Amino acid sequence: MEKKQMNFSIIGGDARSVALIRLLEEAGHQIYVYGFTTHIFSKSIIVCSCIEEAVQKSSIVIGPVPCSQDQVTLFAPFHQGDPIELDILFSLLSDHQTFMAGQLTIAMQKKINPLVYTVDLLEREELAVWNAIPTAEGAIQIAMEEQPITIHQSCSLVLGFGRCGKILSHMLKGLGANVSVAVRNSKDAAYISAYGYQPIILQDLKREIHRFQFIYNTIPHMILDHRLLLYVNKDCLIIDLASKPGGVDYEAAEKLGLNAMLCLSLPGKVAPTTAGWIIKETVLNICEEMRGDK
Amino acid sequence: MEKKQMNFSIIGGDARSVALIRLLEEAGHQIYVYGFTTHIFSKSIIVCSCIEEAVQKSSIVIGPVPCSQDQVTLFAPFHQGDPIELDILFSLLSDHQTFMAGQLTIAMQKKINPLVYTVDLLEREELAVWNAIPTAEGAIQIAMEEQPITIHQSCSLVLGFGRCGKILSHMLKGLGANVSVAVRNSKDAAYISAYGYQPIILQDLKREIHRFQFIYNTIPHMILDHRLLLYVNKDCLIIDLASKPGGVDYEAAEKLGLNAMLCLSLPGKVAPTTAGWIIKETVLNICEEMRGDK
Amino acid sequence: MEKKQMNFSIIGGDARSVALIRLLEEAGHQIYVYGFTTHIFSKSIIVCSCIEEAVQKSSIVIGPVPCSQDQVTLFAPFHQGDPIELDILFSLLSDHQTFMAGQLTIAMQKKINPLVYTVDLLEREELAVWNAIPTAEGAIQIAMEEQPITIHQSCSLVLGFGRCGKILSHMLKGLGANVSVAVRNSKDAAYISAYGYQPIILQDLKREIHRFQFIYNTIPHMILDHRLLLYVNKDCLIIDLASKPGGVDYEAAEKLGLNAMLCLSLPGKVAPTTAGWIIKETVLNICEEMRGDK
Amino acid sequence: MEKKQMNFSIIGGDARSVALIRLLEEAGHQIYVYGFTTHIFSKSIIVCSCIEEAVQKSSIVIGPVPCSQDQVTLFAPFHQGDPIELDILFSLLSDHQTFMAGQLTIAMQKKINPLVYTVDLLEREELAVWNAIPTAEGAIQIAMEEQPITIHQSCSLVLGFGRCGKILSHMLKGLGANVSVAVRNSKDAAYISAYGYQPIILQDLKREIHRFQFIYNTIPHMILDHRLLLYVNKDCLIIDLASKPGGVDYEAAEKLGLNAMLCLSLPGKVAPTTAGWIIKETVLNICEEMRGDK
Repeated sequence: MEKKQMNFSIIGGDARSVALIRLLEEAGHQIYVYGFTTHIFSKSIIVCSCIEEAVQKSSIVIGPVPCSQDQVTLFAPFHQGDPIELDILFSLLSDHQTFMAGQLTIAMQKKINPLVYTVDLLEREELAVWNAIPTAEGAIQIAMEEQPITIHQSCSLVLGFGRCGKILSHMLKGLGANVSVAVRNSKDAAYISAYGYQPIILQDLKREIHRFQFIYNTIPHMILDHRLLLYVNKDCLIIDLASKPGGVDYEAAEKLGLNAMLCLSLPGKVAPTTAGWIIKETVLNICEEMRGDK
Repeated sequence: MEKKQMNFSIIGGDARSVALIRLLEEAGHQIYVYGFTTHIFSKSIIVCSCIEEAVQKSSIVIGPVPCSQDQVTLFAPFHQGDPIELDILFSLLSDHQTFMAGQLTIAMQKKINPLVYTVDLLEREELAVWNAIPTAEGAIQIAMEEQPITIHQSCSLVLGFGRCGKILSHMLKGLGANVSVAVRNSKDAAYISAYGYQPIILQDLKREIHRFQFIYNTIPHMILDHRLLLYVNKDCLIIDLASKPGGVDYEAAEKLGLNAMLCLSLPGKVAPTTAGWIIKETVLNICEEMRGDK
Repeated sequence: MEKKQMNFSIIGGDARSVALIRLLEEAGHQIYVYGFTTHIFSKSIIVCSCIEEAVQKSSIVIGPVPCSQDQVTLFAPFHQGDPIELDILFSLLSDHQTFMAGQLTIAMQKKINPLVYTVDLLEREELAVWNAIPTAEGAIQIAMEEQPITIHQSCSLVLGFGRCGKILSHMLKGLGANVSVAVRNSKDAAYISAYGYQPIILQDLKREIHRFQFIYNTIPHMILDHRLLLYVNKDCLIIDLASKPGGVDYEAAEKLGLNAMLCLSLPGKVAPTTAGWIIKETVLNICEEMRGDK
Repeated sequence: MEKKQMNFSIIGGDARSVALIRLLEEAGHQIYVYGFTTHIFSKSIIVCSCIEEAVQKSSIVIGPVPCSQDQVTLFAPFHQGDPIELDILFSLLSDHQTFMAGQLTIAMQKKINPLVYTVDLLEREELAVWNAIPTAEGAIQIAMEEQPITIHQSCSLVLGFGRCGKILSHMLKGLGANVSVAVRNSKDAAYISAYGYQPIILQDLKREIHRFQFIYNTIPHMILDHRLLLYVNKDCLIIDLASKPGGVDYEAAEKLGLNAMLCLSLPGKVAPTTAGWIIKETVLNICEEMRGDK
């Protein structure tokens, strides 16, 4: 497909947004930014002096991921001065503009002009799949840092075989781990053995769990409850990647002296540049789809 | 789970059923067989002299995969004498027996006592996933046989990323091929690049297709139509794994002098023992589920 | 490095030489050929009417691989008319020409003008390594054709961890086999476990060998003698890739009803185009080295 | 092979020796220790009150890895009280005992009774191969910690294809990196492409080096000198795994603002338990060989 130069206004965000700005600029687009007071950009990127200017310059406005941490002000850690209020940003968006950001709640969307096309980036499937890559690497980095053994030839258990479970299992096997994956149904179990991991049916976990040195949870339910934790080896490291409250009974784990860590939002923490690249790809996919729809 | 000895009656089928019989027997079950006149079994397997006896002996009766090729008689290539009529077999099934076979059509199911629990094995998800393994290996075997180049470092294109596309891509990469996978949506494309293949969006295929030496189709629609075939390299081998009528315009391919092969039902052809193992696993899963339901 | 056009005269050989001719021509070189009567080349390749002309046209003359099968005439299966005598070819080579071919015996080299720079292509290390790739694929193809089970999840044993053992193990693992490799020393055993295969020390083989469904021998000594064959499973396929007489007691294997196959010269048989590419790469490496030496 | 209970005396060492003690004990051997004042062992391990007792108890005495850091006293970080002098330990070794340790210099060996069989563990090939695994993982951990991008899909260059280069390349590819390996000769280049990495000939490195985001050096010569560093990307991370003084001109790297890190002795730092397991395997191999020699 032929590339067409577009304008993007990027308002607030962390190191991922900085990477996004650079990558969109390198892809040949014109970028306007606001909310990065402490960051120095290359000359071809236009730093706007006020939010009004930034929002007006482009038909596509990209907010942070997540859009807000307090539901009132924009998430803009590089911004100095008064916090940017969501309401002000939303009021500036005009008919036929597109606004993309992460975790655009229904409450937020209600405040935005209905003729603005809004996209919650975190609802995009491809972003979620891609984010599983830095999540998996982040989990592996923590596993390497915490334990006195190698991943190679370790007994590693992955709970769940969704996006994160699939990619984490693939990488652990790539490092030479003995990978088992626990799932609920026989279809997933067939995939798991097809890919060369050992499948475990969740209800049989109690019998098997003692032999693992690493357990990675990706299932957003209470899987490792106090009864199952009783069988976990004392030297095992538990890395919980499932969104809050996670899949581990942390209180029980602490009583048993087990090392269990809740590790959230890894992409932005361990690989912000890659995470920015992922947002860029997603944004360009969305633009492509919008063009296709016309 | 503790294993419990069960009785199975296996009526008709090809080399896969022979493997199934042996594997169920090795797993400790009592097996009754009918419809394998030309095959000699080990002593512990009981060869019934008539179909009535075979059907009565077990609560679980397993027919062939597929159940019939002509919708009238049982598929039983090892059987000598008069063909076994489906109607006779169906009439022998009694209340609370379970009957499993492949391609149990609605017409067939209507002829069976409604108190018989029937299972179409080919509708089972785990069987379909597992069957993708011998299908992928069969495709690779044919690719090796037909072309004067190695799979290693070849440019290989897989169309589709369902069960067969996933496992075939995985194996081709395992052999060192440069694997591209063409799909329709950006979510699948993200998985494809996460696994280390090059993603191609189907609508961009025309621009890319000339560089491939192997094309494997797994999409059950007309993908490689006469317009797209125009761009395919003359030395390329096209292996079509999609069910009839397949995804290739064979007439156009022939006119263009392209080598396109429709390769169906590979598991039973290239790896009947593995295919029998897959049926066994599926049968035991079904038995497990039936026990769980009680 | 900048590419420089060179002249090559290619005299005799099989499908690999035909591929070599095409690939050198595509790389921008001028090619003169003799000994391919039954083959039609593209116009840019000059077919010489006599061997004298062909030899004189280039400073680099490339004979077949192997140079001869009977030590008297050139190996030239595409040549019609009287066989080409080695002595005539050798007598035509003049001072400062380079002559490359496969299996250039000492007897042959003695007959060549000592001012001719001769290279036995089969003595080149990189060619031997590259040839391990089509050899491994050929072995896998045969394994797939002969056995009713998949390579995936099979118990596969590789004897030896030299060029062929290394690459075959890598590919078998890539297809999902459970790979064991038997070697003599603990250093190789450490590499084997580092790459994720199970190491077996050769002297312990007797205890382990019964469980394998495929055995690939790459060790050019009598490893699978009659004592060891006693322990091999009756359903096992033995593929012997070691040069004659191979590493299997074939007589004993036959008595035991074992399926053992001696598979030699696989690259030229299963993948002549790739084998021709390998010769091309090797020839260009040699030319590069000759330029570097000057 | 049948396992025979042996006695081992382990004198000094760090966390690797502690792991070694536990693993030998778990393998059924009787262990005597000295030099671990601050560590509490399980009851079955006998803590000797003086070095004389510890040395006398076993025919096999295992010192630290390395034996000494100052060439005068034993490397014993868990020991409290006066340092243990090498000379005292050496004087206690008696005829027909075996003494193993790391970096047993010639000067040290001269001080030991010639009827003692001495083994420098760091000279053992299998230990060196195995140590490449935690070294590679340690390098990957550092790469993950230092850079804001994922290993996955990064452009990664490995300099050298010895033990460490081989295993590091394998793991980087397992994580999804685009791996290039630079070597001197065409044989190694052939292996590199066989394993699916991109080979680079060292003399062509200048032309290619700018595109890498990670460079791992395993060659113990000055490879990345000031001329080559000029071409390295400013965002690239250089991890130097080659023994002192390493293969990087660190002064030039600093002037250029490049991030270059010399990372030595990684196994003991990142995975002491695995490193202890490696010593245990090596020690048992040596014992096996000694038995075989008798």
